[in-house]
Amino acid sequence: MEKLYVIKIGGNVVDDATSLNLFLQKFSAIDAGKILVHGGGKIATSIGRKLGIEPNYINGRRITDEATIDLVTMVYGGLINKKLVAALQSIHCNAIGLTGADANIIPAARRPVTDVDYGFVGDVVSSQPAGSGGLAVDSLQLFLDNKLVPVVAPLTHDGRGQILNTNADTIASALAVALSKQYQVRLIYCFEKKGVLENVDDESSVIKLINKEKYKQLLQDKKLADGILPKMENAFAAINSGVKEVLIGNASDLLQNVTTETKGTLIVS
Amino acid sequence: MEKLYVIKIGGNVVDDATSLNLFLQKFSAIDAGKILVHGGGKIATSIGRKLGIEPNYINGRRITDEATIDLVTMVYGGLINKKLVAALQSIHCNAIGLTGADANIIPAARRPVTDVDYGFVGDVVSSQPAGSGGLAVDSLQLFLDNKLVPVVAPLTHDGRGQILNTNADTIASALAVALSKQYQVRLIYCFEKKGVLENVDDESSVIKLINKEKYKQLLQDKKLADGILPKMENAFAAINSGVKEVLIGNASDLLQNVTTETKGTLIVS
Repeated sequence: MEKLYVIKIGGNVVDDATSLNLFLQKFSAIDAGKILVHGGGKIATSIGRKLGIEPNYINGRRITDEATIDLVTMVYGGLINKKLVAALQSIHCNAIGLTGADANIIPAARRPVTDVDYGFVGDVVSSQPAGSGGLAVDSLQLFLDNKLVPVVAPLTHDGRGQILNTNADTIASALAVALSKQYQVRLIYCFEKKGVLENVDDESSVIKLINKEKYKQLLQDKKLADGILPKMENAFAAINSGVKEVLIGNASDLLQNVTTETKGTLIVS
Repeated sequence: MEKLYVIKIGGNVVDDATSLNLFLQKFSAIDAGKILVHGGGKIATSIGRKLGIEPNYINGRRITDEATIDLVTMVYGGLINKKLVAALQSIHCNAIGLTGADANIIPAARRPVTDVDYGFVGDVVSSQPAGSGGLAVDSLQLFLDNKLVPVVAPLTHDGRGQILNTNADTIASALAVALSKQYQVRLIYCFEKKGVLENVDDESSVIKLINKEKYKQLLQDKKLADGILPKMENAFAAINSGVKEVLIGNASDLLQNVTTETKGTLIVS
């Protein structure tokens, strides 16, 4: 089975030109199938502010009204995505920028209204056999087989013409799971810390390896900070659905020698 | 040789929801290879104005400063392109949104500064043998072979990381020419008139067919209005480079029965 790297970067990489260039160099050098998923960053907020769109969060999630979905479609799908693609092309990485609507790669459903109406937020339609509404594995594989490198914005669509805002971690995990039958997938979440920390105040306390037992123990001991908990849940959901391993840590460390090293926290079943 | 339709729509279609929906229905129904190229529209100007970016034209061309290239990357590459893709997906047309940077389909060079500095405006690198810097025919053909429908924004890149603003008519013509060895290409320019008019004030005076001789005669008789002249130059440049025919006219007429009818003005060698 061929290897495939699905790598997610967030605002802390996207917003910083130096970190970003370094990251893209290392990403470009990975000699295997790879997909880059990017988050938003501060620029969406600052452009939104100029347009009179104030961010509105409930439970840490942005409420996506009509003005906001247009804003993120522009900024995530246009500005950030195309700048990443042009930068990768300049270092001979044959990038192709995509949202979930392009080639229908990530169909989604608008999140049902319960006590909160999140607006135009999409939940990924879970991976299913081809043709039954899941991710378009055939198109993704077509790109990968032809050495194209998908660069995926955190946007999906509802199949009825509406673009939806979708969490980048979730998109990375959905792509990793969907391709785990065809590839030996390493899903990599880059974030601001060096990894999952034994002691949240000590950057040197990175836990090297977490398996299910260790995870249970960490949960029991309440050692996982609020910020890392959803990432761990995403990680184990991916592993339970066929992804070989998940690596969590700092972008510059993680890609140092991505094919062999395991700086950061490696999560396995 | 298989047929391929390369169809360009401008602001008059993009800006009008009713025209656009009608157009997309007809476009989706074309049972052959097809590529949609879209222009900008008024929305770029109105969003730019909110962001404090006033349009600045010299000789009918927008001067593209740094703020403007970010604006058009967002609006053309993000907002308009992804809305078109999502709308086409909703009517079962497997659209994939692209700029010239994606899969490196349209390399360009920043226009040299002469008496005017157009800023971040790109001239398409002319079609050349594969690998020597021309359009990525192999990737375009990969998409077409796999029933993906490219939806192309009027943006290119310089291969050094810079996105460039490029005229949509020119992009349509460059794509048509690049694919004319592999396909029998009909290039279709949709615009506000019903076709090239014998008498510019009489919408019913559409010239059905223009070949090179007729074109010479029209030029001699000074019958071509300023607005149509660059389109005619683009059309004959395409035909001289291998494109089979160019059709110019109104979007709703042209796609009435695109595979057989020739409403509008048909331009041939």
